[in-house]
Amino acid sequence: MKLAIVGASGAVGHELLGVLEKSSLNFSELRLYASPRSAGSILECRGQKITVEVMPEGAIDADVILASAGGGISKTQAPIWAAAGAVVIDNSSAFRYEDTVPLVVPEINGDVLLESDWKAGGIIANPNCTTAILVMALEPLHKAFGIKRAIVSTYQATSGAGAKGMQELEQQTRNSLEGKPVVNEVFAHPIVFNLIPHIDAFLDNGYTKEEMKVLWETHKIMRAPQIKLSCTAVRIPTMRAHSEAVTLELERPATPQAARALLEAAAGVDVVDDPATKRYPMPLTASGKYNIEVGRIRSSLVFDGGLDLFICGDQLLKGAALNAVQIAEYLQQHNKI
Amino acid sequence: MKLAIVGASGAVGHELLGVLEKSSLNFSELRLYASPRSAGSILECRGQKITVEVMPEGAIDADVILASAGGGISKTQAPIWAAAGAVVIDNSSAFRYEDTVPLVVPEINGDVLLESDWKAGGIIANPNCTTAILVMALEPLHKAFGIKRAIVSTYQATSGAGAKGMQELEQQTRNSLEGKPVVNEVFAHPIVFNLIPHIDAFLDNGYTKEEMKVLWETHKIMRAPQIKLSCTAVRIPTMRAHSEAVTLELERPATPQAARALLEAAAGVDVVDDPATKRYPMPLTASGKYNIEVGRIRSSLVFDGGLDLFICGDQLLKGAALNAVQIAEYLQQHNKI
Repeated sequence: MKLAIVGASGAVGHELLGVLEKSSLNFSELRLYASPRSAGSILECRGQKITVEVMPEGAIDADVILASAGGGISKTQAPIWAAAGAVVIDNSSAFRYEDTVPLVVPEINGDVLLESDWKAGGIIANPNCTTAILVMALEPLHKAFGIKRAIVSTYQATSGAGAKGMQELEQQTRNSLEGKPVVNEVFAHPIVFNLIPHIDAFLDNGYTKEEMKVLWETHKIMRAPQIKLSCTAVRIPTMRAHSEAVTLELERPATPQAARALLEAAAGVDVVDDPATKRYPMPLTASGKYNIEVGRIRSSLVFDGGLDLFICGDQLLKGAALNAVQIAEYLQQHNKI
Repeated sequence: MKLAIVGASGAVGHELLGVLEKSSLNFSELRLYASPRSAGSILECRGQKITVEVMPEGAIDADVILASAGGGISKTQAPIWAAAGAVVIDNSSAFRYEDTVPLVVPEINGDVLLESDWKAGGIIANPNCTTAILVMALEPLHKAFGIKRAIVSTYQATSGAGAKGMQELEQQTRNSLEGKPVVNEVFAHPIVFNLIPHIDAFLDNGYTKEEMKVLWETHKIMRAPQIKLSCTAVRIPTMRAHSEAVTLELERPATPQAARALLEAAAGVDVVDDPATKRYPMPLTASGKYNIEVGRIRSSLVFDGGLDLFICGDQLLKGAALNAVQIAEYLQQHNKI
């Protein structure tokens, strides 16, 4: 199986190489593509030094392409790559809402990849990072208790905007401490010692696209369009790992104990929930970790039998690179590639 | 009127002097008290240099005492000061939940100070900072539409833990950028490039005391114990101004337009809500400002006719020092001091 990464020099590309290093995915060849600016640099994976090449204009000679070079490139190139026979696992939002494109978190709806019709398009969408982390915690609770309403407030890291987001936070922090002017290019406002309740574009209903992605993608991945969900998406001055405060109204009453037991048994989830020893989900502990952290699990004070909880997950891993590689692993395990 | 500040050298004490500088409050004398460590330093207010004195053990010769030296000192000293005839405006949580102690945000329930019985105890409680900011936005909406449920997620600044909280964030940030070890004393974990979903002590129901304060104090200040409210309180690496994401279920349906008009007309509130020009509440714009900012006002996606909004307010001002001085001003305007 020939594997290619497009966008190899970005923040997600960097994580893809790290995840592939430890993955059991079998591939005979790995080629790395990026923009002309990054081409020529040498990256390493599984003991091999690989020179980053300029992304070709047409087809790519690969069986599986992990695409993470932004929505614009995916939009024009992914159909070309797929038409030439590749399976494209696309990290952008370009195809996520098309009925014929599966949007997959393998632990939750990997089985849609076993249906015969998805391969028509050849493109599989990797979810929005905030959503991927969220559904990992919601799915086990939904199966057991039936989620009616979910209210989500996010605390999103600067690396959600890529490596340049982290660099901007670091530079602004240095300048701020030295009393120098703080300049913002990546974010709409300075992010150092600030927060910005604005991620992605504003839509006509007053929500941002990031906030609506969480609704749209939760519905599609969990196959539960009946869930009412509202999100407030906020950028905060952290480097990586997104956190989410979640309040749930449930069809059937839940206890924190029962929720904890279900989440402890769920693949890809760590219950980090011991107030006595000051253990709860935090970017400090969730960064670099494959599993998402869930904690602060308690009975809701607004919905009888409902739950409040706090989630933190590395959005560059489960929210992007890890999930993409897990999709490829799932396909290989089921002989689909 | 003789005025005294206890805890003059702390973060709130510093703000009290700044607010008094611009306030119309009439006083003939201002005395400043602090711990022996800070005594002897010289602070300025209204052109006068005032030497900080060690807080005496017994009564203080003042008509009004603004107390901001922590719950322990308030608990033992405020009753002594009040018994000697002073009106104590106490910034701690020590007396907030006593039936005989008014808990006041003047714009909302200043009228309780006009009732005859409150002066029995002589103590007036200044609310929790997160709550004071929240109720400024909720009260106009509650009057018009009747709030049934409120879900609140907070983004709280390090200065909520006093000047030492800000110093810890700054020191940790310097160390982090220089690759030196990060040490935490004020907060339970490092706060630099992190968040901590834990403010104040954990209670048996899994909520923190900070989270329950928001419920208890909203009920008392708004005189609306029927509101169901759930809060997740999170410390983030900002210096000052607390933010809050709020989802509201209402008795009577509201439009964002109607909510905006009501909040624009409310004293102490600035509507900052123009996505087209990237204007929304942020610590960057709310810090140092008397009015709280409300924005991101939009129709709820989980409650028909409900609202989602985002609030940011300087918790050292409206959440502490400003509100305390406003209580004193209210008393003076109504000839109660």
